[in-house]
Amino acid sequence: MTEKAFQDYYPTDFGQCYGCGPFNDYGMKIKSFWTENEEESICHFTPKPYHTAVPGVVYGGLIASLIDCHATATASAAGYKSEAREIGSDPPLRYVTASLCVDYLKPTPIDATLQLIGKVKEIKGRKIIITVTLSANEEICARGEVVTVLMPDSMLSRK
Amino acid sequence: MTEKAFQDYYPTDFGQCYGCGPFNDYGMKIKSFWTENEEESICHFTPKPYHTAVPGVVYGGLIASLIDCHATATASAAGYKSEAREIGSDPPLRYVTASLCVDYLKPTPIDATLQLIGKVKEIKGRKIIITVTLSANEEICARGEVVTVLMPDSMLSRK
Repeated sequence: MTEKAFQDYYPTDFGQCYGCGPFNDYGMKIKSFWTENEEESICHFTPKPYHTAVPGVVYGGLIASLIDCHATATASAAGYKSEAREIGSDPPLRYVTASLCVDYLKPTPIDATLQLIGKVKEIKGRKIIITVTLSANEEICARGEVVTVLMPDSMLSRK
Repeated sequence: MTEKAFQDYYPTDFGQCYGCGPFNDYGMKIKSFWTENEEESICHFTPKPYHTAVPGVVYGGLIASLIDCHATATASAAGYKSEAREIGSDPPLRYVTASLCVDYLKPTPIDATLQLIGKVKEIKGRKIIITVTLSANEEICARGEVVTVLMPDSMLSRK
C-alpha cells in the first residue's frame, strides 16, 4: 500500500463527501489505496455498533455507501494512471457515480473489519467502471459495480 | 397518508436499522406510508448539511440508503397486503435487500426535502421487487430498483 490515500489528494471542494471526504468532520473518512501490485484497490472500514440492519448485521445502506465511495476514489486514481499523470496533479480528476448496483450475498457481521477490493473493469472516455467486493472475516458478503463519470461542471456550480 | 408509518409496526428486533429503525437512536428513522390510494408509498427526508458529496449536493450513499430502506419498508407493507393481513400482525413480515440498483440522474440539492415514491413491481413467493424515485424540488434526481426477500432465519441467528 502507498502511505497517502487516494482521498487525501482531493482538493478541498472535492473532499467534502460524507463517505470519504477528508474535510467532512461528520463523515466516515474512508481511505482507499492501491495494493502492492497496483492491480486492485483496497479499503478497510470498521462499522460502528449502531450501523445495524438487524442486531449483529450491517445495514445495507452502509455497504452501498462504502462500495460507492471506494469505487469513485479508485476511479480517480485509475484516471490519473490512465493519463500517466501524478495522482493529485492539476487539473484534479474527481469521478461521480452514474449508477450503482450491489448484490447482497450474505449478512455482513457488524463486529468485523470490512475489506473492500476494487478493480477497474473499463475505462472509456469520461467513464470508468469499477467492480468492488466487500468481505468480512475473509468471506465475500457483497459485490458491487459502479459506473463513474468525470464530475460534470453542473455539480460544481452549486457551491 | 396513514398516521402510523410502516416502520412503526416493526417489532423491536426488526426495528434496529440505522436507516429506518424506530429503535436505533443514532439512525435516520425514515418513515414510509401509503399514499391515499395505496398504489404508491411515500417518504420524506431532509438531509443534514454534512450529507454532502461536493458542496451543495447530497452524497450518493445517502440516496442509496434512503431508496433501500424505503423499498424494504414498502415490501413489508405490500407483503401484508398481498396476504390480506393487518400490517404488524404476527408473524411479522420483514424484508431484506438481495440487490439494489440506483441510477443517479442529476445532482440532488442538499437544501431541499427529498421525496421518495415507491411502487411494487413484482411479488413472487418470498421475493418482492420495488421501484423507487427520489425527487427534490419536484425533479427526479435518482431512480432505484430493489429486489427484497423475506428475511432469512440466518440473519436472526446472529443476535
